[in-house]
Amino acid sequence: MNVARKSGTVRHYIHILRKEIRETPSKMFYNILFLLLVSYRATQALENGLARTPPMGWMHWERYRCITDCKNYPNECISENLFKRTTDLLVSEGYAAAGYEYVIIDDCWLEKSRDNVTNKLVEDRYRFPSGLNHLADYIHNSGLKFGLYQDYGTHTCAGYPGVINHMALDAQTFAEWDVDYVKLDGCYADTATMDAGYPEFGRLLNKTGRPMIYSCSWPVYQEYEGKIPDYEALKQHCNLWRNYDDIDDSFESVAKIMDYFSKNQDRIQPHGGPGHWNDPDMLILGNYGLSYDQSKLQMAVWAILAAPLIMSNDLATVRPEIKAILQNRDVIAVNQDPLGIQGRRILIQKNIEVWARPIMPRNAAGDYSYAVAFVSRRTDGAPYPISFNLKEIGLRSQRGYDVFNLYDKTEQLGLYKSLDSFYTRIIPNGVNFYKFTVLGSPNRY
Amino acid sequence: MNVARKSGTVRHYIHILRKEIRETPSKMFYNILFLLLVSYRATQALENGLARTPPMGWMHWERYRCITDCKNYPNECISENLFKRTTDLLVSEGYAAAGYEYVIIDDCWLEKSRDNVTNKLVEDRYRFPSGLNHLADYIHNSGLKFGLYQDYGTHTCAGYPGVINHMALDAQTFAEWDVDYVKLDGCYADTATMDAGYPEFGRLLNKTGRPMIYSCSWPVYQEYEGKIPDYEALKQHCNLWRNYDDIDDSFESVAKIMDYFSKNQDRIQPHGGPGHWNDPDMLILGNYGLSYDQSKLQMAVWAILAAPLIMSNDLATVRPEIKAILQNRDVIAVNQDPLGIQGRRILIQKNIEVWARPIMPRNAAGDYSYAVAFVSRRTDGAPYPISFNLKEIGLRSQRGYDVFNLYDKTEQLGLYKSLDSFYTRIIPNGVNFYKFTVLGSPNRY
Repeated sequence: MNVARKSGTVRHYIHILRKEIRETPSKMFYNILFLLLVSYRATQALENGLARTPPMGWMHWERYRCITDCKNYPNECISENLFKRTTDLLVSEGYAAAGYEYVIIDDCWLEKSRDNVTNKLVEDRYRFPSGLNHLADYIHNSGLKFGLYQDYGTHTCAGYPGVINHMALDAQTFAEWDVDYVKLDGCYADTATMDAGYPEFGRLLNKTGRPMIYSCSWPVYQEYEGKIPDYEALKQHCNLWRNYDDIDDSFESVAKIMDYFSKNQDRIQPHGGPGHWNDPDMLILGNYGLSYDQSKLQMAVWAILAAPLIMSNDLATVRPEIKAILQNRDVIAVNQDPLGIQGRRILIQKNIEVWARPIMPRNAAGDYSYAVAFVSRRTDGAPYPISFNLKEIGLRSQRGYDVFNLYDKTEQLGLYKSLDSFYTRIIPNGVNFYKFTVLGSPNRY
Repeated sequence: MNVARKSGTVRHYIHILRKEIRETPSKMFYNILFLLLVSYRATQALENGLARTPPMGWMHWERYRCITDCKNYPNECISENLFKRTTDLLVSEGYAAAGYEYVIIDDCWLEKSRDNVTNKLVEDRYRFPSGLNHLADYIHNSGLKFGLYQDYGTHTCAGYPGVINHMALDAQTFAEWDVDYVKLDGCYADTATMDAGYPEFGRLLNKTGRPMIYSCSWPVYQEYEGKIPDYEALKQHCNLWRNYDDIDDSFESVAKIMDYFSKNQDRIQPHGGPGHWNDPDMLILGNYGLSYDQSKLQMAVWAILAAPLIMSNDLATVRPEIKAILQNRDVIAVNQDPLGIQGRRILIQKNIEVWARPIMPRNAAGDYSYAVAFVSRRTDGAPYPISFNLKEIGLRSQRGYDVFNLYDKTEQLGLYKSLDSFYTRIIPNGVNFYKFTVLGSPNRY
C-alpha cells in the first residue's frame, strides 16, 4: 500500500527484536535476517500484501441496515449476538470452507459519543456488552477475520461519531480491537479533502503495525459530484473502493450497478488487480428481491468483475439452492483467479450481454482462458437463442478452447475453435456461465 | 352480455325441442317449461351468464411466446403436445382442483393461410396433427375447458390470419371446435372500428348457440392512442378485457401494471364485476423473473383486483413453494369472492402501499369484510414497520374485525376495532396479506 505502512511494520519488528535481544540473544541472527528481508521488501513495494484476490465475507448493511432496537428485533439488531451467530453459520453452513472469511460490522455499532476522558470510540454498550475485543476473539477463534466500519467525516452516515478529528487515535483503537478490515465511508465530509485524508488514515492504520485491509469510499463521493477520482492514488492507498451507489434488494439495483460498471469500464476496469479492487458492493443473494436465476446472474457478473464477494443476508434462512450458488466452487474460482484481471462487458446483442474475463490457465503461446457470462436482460418469457463467433467475443487463441458450464457440470459442450460459432439459449433474467479453457495449457492439451 | 347471444341460445333450444317433439313427445312439457324460463331470462339480462367470478386457467403466451420450431424445441413449441401435457399437469398437480379451468391457446396456432376452398381457419397441421376437435375433447374429458386466441384485425399480432373479413364463418368454426373461451386481440386493425366490430364478433359468437367467454383487447389498443374506452359498452359485450400492456417476466412489469391499475382506478375499478372483469394479464409465477416474495405479491394484488387468474408457466417445473402460492385456497377465495367488487389501492405511505377489497361475509349492518394487502415497494434490505388506524384504510365497521394472515395461518392476530392501530412489518418487495372478517356476520359473532 505505501512505505509508511511497511515502516510501521519495521518499527514493530525492531520493538520485538529489542525485547528479544534482551530476553533470548540466541534468536538474534534469525531475527536480523528477517528484519532485513522485510525492510528490503518495504522499499520495493507500495502494497500491504493483503487482498491478493478479492476479499470474501459477510457484512450486515444491505440486509440489516441500522436496526438498533434489540428489544423488538432481537435477531436482527446490530449486536454482538448477530455477528456471533453469523460467524457460527459461516462455519457450520460451509461458507467459510468456500472462502468467505471477513465478518464485517457496518454502520450503527457505536455509542453516540466518544469516551469523555480518553476521546476513544466506544462500541454500543448495550448491543456489544462484551466489547469488540471479545467479539474479535470469537471471530478469530472460528478461523475468520474481523472487519469494522467507520466514516472519514464528522459523523457516520447514520449519525455516529466519525474519524475526522481523531484519526491517529481511531486507527490505534482499531488495531487494539484486533480489526483485520476497515471500511471507511464518506458521509458528512468535504470531498475536496478526501484525496489527502483517505491516504492519511491508511498511513495511520499502517503505522499501528497491524495488517488491515483498507476499503475506501472516496471515489463514489467524488463521482456524485461529477469528479473523476484519481484511480492511481486509490490503487496506491486502498485495497478496495466503492465506485457507485449502495446496492439495494432488487434486480433493478443489480442491473443499475452492472450498467454503471460496463458503461464506465474503460476508466474503471484497468485499475482492478491483486491488492486493489473495484467494489460493486454486496451480494444480495438469499434475501427477498432476486429470483433464483437473477441470483445466479449477480454471482456470475460479480465473478467476472473480480468483485469482493461480501454477502449481506440472513445465513440462517438462505434457501439450499441459493446457498449452492453462493458456494459454487467453480464460480468462486473465477472470482478468485490469481491473475486478478477484471472482466468487461464485451458486447450487447438483442438485449443479451456478453461479459468476459481472462483467467488462468494460459497456454505456451500466452493465450488466456476465459470465463464468459451470457447475460439476458430480456424479459419476454421464453429462452432466447443466440450465437457468437468466439473471435467476436475476444477468444482468439489458434489452439481453441474446451468449454464447461460453470453452473451445470452435466452439460457436454466440448471443443471450440476461435472461428467456431458458439450457440446458447438464455432464459429471461438469466445467465449462462461458461469457462473456456484454452488448449495447449498445462492442464488441457 | 347481449340479447342476441341469448336469442342464439333460445334458437338452439327450439332446434333441439323440435327434434325432440318428433322423437320423444313425452319430454315436451319439460322442454317447453325450460324454454320459457330461458326466454324470460334472455329478455331481462344482457349477460351470457358466464364468468360470474374471474376466469381461472392457463395460457401459453407469456412463457412460450411464438415458439413454432418443434424440431429443436419439442417441449416448448405451440403444439397439441404442449396443451395436452399442460392439461394433464393441471389435473395431476392439483391446479384444476384449486379452480384453474381454462386451457387457452394464444397466438401462433394457425396455418399462415385459410383453407383455399372453404375459407375456414386451419390449425397448423404439423403442430396440431389431430385437429382442434381432438384437443378440445382431450381437455373436456379432463374436466377442463378450451380457450382459443384470435385477432380482430387482418392478421394476428404474430402475422397469422385474423377474423376481420370472416367474422361469421370464424365464430361458427370456433363453436364447431367446441371452444369455451375466445381471446380476441387487436393487432393490424383500425381502432376506430373496434367500438362496433368487437360487439359484432361477440354477437356472432352468441349466434352459434355455444356459450363462450369473450375476452376483448379493445380498450388497450384505444388507450395506446390516448382514447378513453367506452367501459359501459365493454361491460355489455365482453366478459373480460385487457386494459394495459402485455405482462413480461419481471417484477418491473408487474409493478408497472399495478401502477397503471391504481393510478387509473377511478375510471377502471367501477366497471369490474360478475360477468365483466378488468384483466391485468397473466400470472407469471413459476417462471424466471419473480422472487418467492414477489410471487406472493403478484398473487395477492391480482386477488385484490378481482383479476382473471390465468397462469403462463411451465407447470412441470414450478417449484413446490410457488405451486403452494398458486394453489393457496384462501387467496383464491378472495379472488373469487362472489360479490365481485374489484379492490383498490387505498393509500401509499413511505413506499408501502395498502390495497383493499370488500368481500363476504357482510354483517347485519351491511358492513363488508375486507382483504387487505400491505405491499412493500421498498428495496432497502430490512423489513419495514408501519401501522395504520383501520378507519384510515377504509375499515369502518363499529363491530370490529377478526384478522387472519392469508399466507400464514399460524400467525395469531385477533380482534381489531375500527379505531385500533394495526401494526405490521413488511419485507422488501414483499406483501402481508390479511383477511379482516367483519364481526356480526353469520360466521363471526
